[in-house]
Amino acid sequence: MIKVGVIGYGYWGPNLVRNFMDAPGSTVVAVCDLRTERLAQLRIRYPTIHTVNDPNLLFNDSSLDAIVIATPVSSHFELAMAALRAGKHVLVEKPLAANSEQATQLIDEAARRKRVLMVDHTFVYTAAVRKIRELLNANALGDIYYYDAVRVNLGLFQHDVNVIWDLAIHDLSIMDYVLPAKATAVSATGISHIPGQPENVAYMTLFFDNRMIAHVHVNWLTPVKVRHTLIGGSEKMILYDDLEPSEKVKIYDKGVTISQSAEAVYEMLVSYRSGDMWAPRLDATEALQTEALHFIDCLENGEQPATDGQAGLRLVRTVEAAEKSLRAKGQLVEIQ
Amino acid sequence: MIKVGVIGYGYWGPNLVRNFMDAPGSTVVAVCDLRTERLAQLRIRYPTIHTVNDPNLLFNDSSLDAIVIATPVSSHFELAMAALRAGKHVLVEKPLAANSEQATQLIDEAARRKRVLMVDHTFVYTAAVRKIRELLNANALGDIYYYDAVRVNLGLFQHDVNVIWDLAIHDLSIMDYVLPAKATAVSATGISHIPGQPENVAYMTLFFDNRMIAHVHVNWLTPVKVRHTLIGGSEKMILYDDLEPSEKVKIYDKGVTISQSAEAVYEMLVSYRSGDMWAPRLDATEALQTEALHFIDCLENGEQPATDGQAGLRLVRTVEAAEKSLRAKGQLVEIQ
Amino acid sequence: MIKVGVIGYGYWGPNLVRNFMDAPGSTVVAVCDLRTERLAQLRIRYPTIHTVNDPNLLFNDSSLDAIVIATPVSSHFELAMAALRAGKHVLVEKPLAANSEQATQLIDEAARRKRVLMVDHTFVYTAAVRKIRELLNANALGDIYYYDAVRVNLGLFQHDVNVIWDLAIHDLSIMDYVLPAKATAVSATGISHIPGQPENVAYMTLFFDNRMIAHVHVNWLTPVKVRHTLIGGSEKMILYDDLEPSEKVKIYDKGVTISQSAEAVYEMLVSYRSGDMWAPRLDATEALQTEALHFIDCLENGEQPATDGQAGLRLVRTVEAAEKSLRAKGQLVEIQ
Amino acid sequence: MIKVGVIGYGYWGPNLVRNFMDAPGSTVVAVCDLRTERLAQLRIRYPTIHTVNDPNLLFNDSSLDAIVIATPVSSHFELAMAALRAGKHVLVEKPLAANSEQATQLIDEAARRKRVLMVDHTFVYTAAVRKIRELLNANALGDIYYYDAVRVNLGLFQHDVNVIWDLAIHDLSIMDYVLPAKATAVSATGISHIPGQPENVAYMTLFFDNRMIAHVHVNWLTPVKVRHTLIGGSEKMILYDDLEPSEKVKIYDKGVTISQSAEAVYEMLVSYRSGDMWAPRLDATEALQTEALHFIDCLENGEQPATDGQAGLRLVRTVEAAEKSLRAKGQLVEIQ
Repeated sequence: MIKVGVIGYGYWGPNLVRNFMDAPGSTVVAVCDLRTERLAQLRIRYPTIHTVNDPNLLFNDSSLDAIVIATPVSSHFELAMAALRAGKHVLVEKPLAANSEQATQLIDEAARRKRVLMVDHTFVYTAAVRKIRELLNANALGDIYYYDAVRVNLGLFQHDVNVIWDLAIHDLSIMDYVLPAKATAVSATGISHIPGQPENVAYMTLFFDNRMIAHVHVNWLTPVKVRHTLIGGSEKMILYDDLEPSEKVKIYDKGVTISQSAEAVYEMLVSYRSGDMWAPRLDATEALQTEALHFIDCLENGEQPATDGQAGLRLVRTVEAAEKSLRAKGQLVEIQ
Repeated sequence: MIKVGVIGYGYWGPNLVRNFMDAPGSTVVAVCDLRTERLAQLRIRYPTIHTVNDPNLLFNDSSLDAIVIATPVSSHFELAMAALRAGKHVLVEKPLAANSEQATQLIDEAARRKRVLMVDHTFVYTAAVRKIRELLNANALGDIYYYDAVRVNLGLFQHDVNVIWDLAIHDLSIMDYVLPAKATAVSATGISHIPGQPENVAYMTLFFDNRMIAHVHVNWLTPVKVRHTLIGGSEKMILYDDLEPSEKVKIYDKGVTISQSAEAVYEMLVSYRSGDMWAPRLDATEALQTEALHFIDCLENGEQPATDGQAGLRLVRTVEAAEKSLRAKGQLVEIQ
Repeated sequence: MIKVGVIGYGYWGPNLVRNFMDAPGSTVVAVCDLRTERLAQLRIRYPTIHTVNDPNLLFNDSSLDAIVIATPVSSHFELAMAALRAGKHVLVEKPLAANSEQATQLIDEAARRKRVLMVDHTFVYTAAVRKIRELLNANALGDIYYYDAVRVNLGLFQHDVNVIWDLAIHDLSIMDYVLPAKATAVSATGISHIPGQPENVAYMTLFFDNRMIAHVHVNWLTPVKVRHTLIGGSEKMILYDDLEPSEKVKIYDKGVTISQSAEAVYEMLVSYRSGDMWAPRLDATEALQTEALHFIDCLENGEQPATDGQAGLRLVRTVEAAEKSLRAKGQLVEIQ
Repeated sequence: MIKVGVIGYGYWGPNLVRNFMDAPGSTVVAVCDLRTERLAQLRIRYPTIHTVNDPNLLFNDSSLDAIVIATPVSSHFELAMAALRAGKHVLVEKPLAANSEQATQLIDEAARRKRVLMVDHTFVYTAAVRKIRELLNANALGDIYYYDAVRVNLGLFQHDVNVIWDLAIHDLSIMDYVLPAKATAVSATGISHIPGQPENVAYMTLFFDNRMIAHVHVNWLTPVKVRHTLIGGSEKMILYDDLEPSEKVKIYDKGVTISQSAEAVYEMLVSYRSGDMWAPRLDATEALQTEALHFIDCLENGEQPATDGQAGLRLVRTVEAAEKSLRAKGQLVEIQ
């Protein structure tokens, strides 16, 4: 039985606590938060869990195997580093750290201590995204032409991070998981509509070494919620709409076929294919439950997490490059 | 009764012929196309219309008041210039010309000859776009924050022009008509998936002198058709979905209110407003009929077209800047 | 080349003329309508077609092979009978006749004269309905449990016939074509909201000899248009939404499995299956073109039409029974 | 502080417990269920609540003010009667009782004891339904022409009651609350697809003394979930779609206008109006919270519940009549 301590009981922490309580193979022993009233709520729901205000009490508790961190980004590095140094396995909320230097140090520390360092890229553990990866791994789409994601709504304005750190990171984590290639450069644009606050609208184009392009559109200030991803391939195309109640992933047997014949000026070189559409059944397990079980499995069997420190670092580096490009109004920035 | 000659009877020409035939105040006297079989089809439908293969026969026909040009982009300049020099009024398919130098010459020629030069930016004549302009003119949205357009489908690949010239120009024409400010610079990205062919996916971010941003996403290779525009303002927001059968324009009384109070690190500076949604009734007149009547009105009463040569030139300049930026992978390019 | 005469050039007639003009194997020689201005419009479009005011001129024209009738219901019998007696093949707009006695006489006359009598049940010739029939014929759904159709919109109020004759007949024609069994009795309800006018809202439940039920909801007075048919089977289920631009037919691998075990009072006897959804590609041919070609084929090769007089009679009998039930506020009426 | 005891902690009980725990003015003191494992789950969540297996312990607990009953229908009468006789106020899950005789006895007992008897018709407490009532009360639709409800999904098969008792009762409760008139007779049809089990598909037409009609379609065996209600009026029409995330209620300024002039046979007596659509903002309070507060308010201030015993009785009588009609395959049955 893996004994878990959770730091941060704000918006996301309760979901983590519930899932590590429900998962066979783990239990939550203690939760830390600075806000007394949050802990009081926790105790009503989970009277067996210890509540503390000081994270050091968790690090120093030798009965704990793992620390789960769900605090603001700025504290990720310090808390995760302290947990690793105390010999704990660590699951940290996305993004892994506030910059790539910190992310690298965490990876190194985890390697040195032979501890698991996993990042909570939740979408990677959804049935929809796993199905997409399965399809792409099986080359069901042919050559991948583009990946286009829209993630917009009237959402909570953050003040410490902009909309790329908050929303686009979800799409970057999905791309990192499902696409065979990694982006090499980025052009980003965006704007803040509230003076002195981080950007609340942003657009990112990601370039790859092959004939592929990706784009992410994120916005905290739209009247309707959209979660719409298109993946185009030479053979088939996917529409992934996370707001659909059941058919979240649709595969279209559509595309173009390029003819070799010479053509007149008014005519086309390409003809169109339009075939069936298919929406595979998706497992209904909550993503965070799949993720909790995967974390436990990595601890017990020494496996590498699907969203390990390296994945976390790749995302932080991509966001860093995007922010640099955004400051330069779209200028191309290489991703380290 | 305005007597019209039409050059080009391909995809769009038949719509122009039908509308100038149906409009009170105009009639189509002659149609020119190089393709004999296209003209044969026309004669079955409209036995009274003369059909010719040589556009000069139209220019030299002193009974004609106006020439409507619906040919490939590369021929716009030559045909429009010849028509103006023959003293005809001209309505030319979008884009006005293949480059801004040509567009400028056409504007100058029309001014010199006191002829009407109008560009067929069809969407400007739709009831939906006119309603949006009316709302923005009345300041119904407050400060405009962003304009975001998606226009994607499995569409005809063009070989002479890329997807920006083909599709984004519709969105640029709508923005030019409804927004009070004009874009000053652009960052564009895109890709061609068919070797040797123009870009079939493109993204454009448009910058303005105020706190506004615009973005256009166009793609000829998506499995589903999307025509989705979001316009965000400080007071209200619009969703314009051209595929909706009747409620194409929805106005949401939603947004954020910025509070002045000091806030703790976990809390927000902004609160959310969510009010009614409203979809105004839209006139069902076909856009091209409204446009034909406007063209006739400009000829008869000497009014300036809503989509005059200057509007056509602004769009061509914007697309030129976008293409330059696209070649430089997103680098900011000022719009002349 | 089949020579066709068309009677009635109102709402639907122009579509019939266009399709018999376009179909290889037929041409429209003459059109009859009482309204001079309708015929004038026709002559502009089709200068080669003769126009007459008296249908007898068509019956007496020995060059004509077939008569297509697109007039109000009350005139179907007289016109179709005269055409058959003149030795013409006949395609008559739905419903075949105003009552089953008339329909029977037409069938008998056609049989006696060895002429084709076909009814224009247009939906039978759509790709969507043909795909549904193909699936049901292949037993893809298992046992059919129910057929439920909704066909409502803000539509033209008819004064000679009620909404069952106008709209429900479409659904009855589809059922007649795709379902293996025929309804044996009907319970119908409805109402007229405009004094002195036919019912503009109606509901019909159709009973079968097996464990199946069907229901049709039609309404001329709804704010939104709905064309929604559900077909439930023991193995799979179909959603047919005629307003979907491309995926009109969706097949769901969903249902219930009945367990044999004894169950406690709070528990269920059935468990749920949820599998993939699949939307087959549908042919894009216009239904009326498929129908015109089928009519020509029946004339030339002596085949029995898919929508022959008997099909037309079955529908008229069903509607007669429904009207009788409607007058009795839902009382069960057997279908003859 | 109202002290509440809850009987039944199955599917719906936990929602009732949570809402009476959260409501200012009430607390849940004890919960009764026969299933030990359900009570164990409750104790983890709410360690302060007493758990018992015998409902008499609640009736005999003089500290309790009110009993909330969320058990199968067959036990409603016995439990509610015992609670009333013990001097408790009662909130009982829909339907109030298994037949109208029982419902009448409960109403009488509550009146005699001056206790509140309220039925949990949850939809009556949703913001959407309250907005519809407000609109109808203000005569915003003009004369009501029809009410048409569809409530279908792949749902839990019940064995003790059919789909009318389970699903249609929601629509009947909404109609009872929003419509000015009460139905006087019903024609119902339906079928069971699982031998020996209650009907899983049903259709009901409700007749009124005026020119109005209502219809309810319920089905436990459809591949897609639909919650779609149309209300047509002489002035305006409503579409209420409970699955819409935010715009659940849309009001359309659409309809027909009847002209008095004589008309030719091919023309219409009616012309069409098409105006704006409007979706009012709806309060986001959970319906059950509104309902709990209303129950508390009735107890404290002696008000009559919006969903009192009489409303419960009217629904039971309607369902009884519907079942009788269903057995007679649609024959009209008067509602007592």
